[in-house]
Amino acid sequence: MIGRLMAMTAHSGKGSELAAVLLRVAERLHGFPGCEIYLISQDAADPDTVHVTEVWQDESSAQAALAASSSADGPNPADVLALLSSPPHRTDLTVLGGVGLPTADGQP
Amino acid sequence: MIGRLMAMTAHSGKGSELAAVLLRVAERLHGFPGCEIYLISQDAADPDTVHVTEVWQDESSAQAALAASSSADGPNPADVLALLSSPPHRTDLTVLGGVGLPTADGQP
Repeated sequence: MIGRLMAMTAHSGKGSELAAVLLRVAERLHGFPGCEIYLISQDAADPDTVHVTEVWQDESSAQAALAASSSADGPNPADVLALLSSPPHRTDLTVLGGVGLPTADGQP
Repeated sequence: MIGRLMAMTAHSGKGSELAAVLLRVAERLHGFPGCEIYLISQDAADPDTVHVTEVWQDESSAQAALAASSSADGPNPADVLALLSSPPHRTDLTVLGGVGLPTADGQP
């Protein structure tokens, strides 16, 4: 599995608006094939910064979700970027395991 | 719910050893009350850096897990710290929602 940590800082005072848009993105990803975790959190020390933790079965499922979001109704990547005061900071991950992932038999 | 992003950098070449210790910590947290996510990932750009994404029902469940780990068999916080080349970097989170969290009815 692969993952990403995205840190996004909104224009001053717009953190809650950014979080709301990202929660709508997450809502659409419930049940999307290969999307295991798409967690939206606000930085406790800086409410204008929102962190997204993503886990995907593989890179192709992540790419498929991105392609779907660009063509579907609802917020798309450009809507998110318009709220940011600086480019998002992205950390790519190799996911090794832990609590909160589906088990090998497909049950969470 | 609250969360934390922990970024830990091991001494050079020790990233896999650090990840293995953290996976043992995670193994013990399966089923721990209030532990929703405890995800272990290796940084794709720097294999000596391991990222832990934690989600807890509340601060007290996180504290209870820490207290339990310090007294139980298996790796404890001091074992983890001994592998690091620098102090861990911690980001505290207010978890808002998304994919991979339990739903309100208690089902994942």
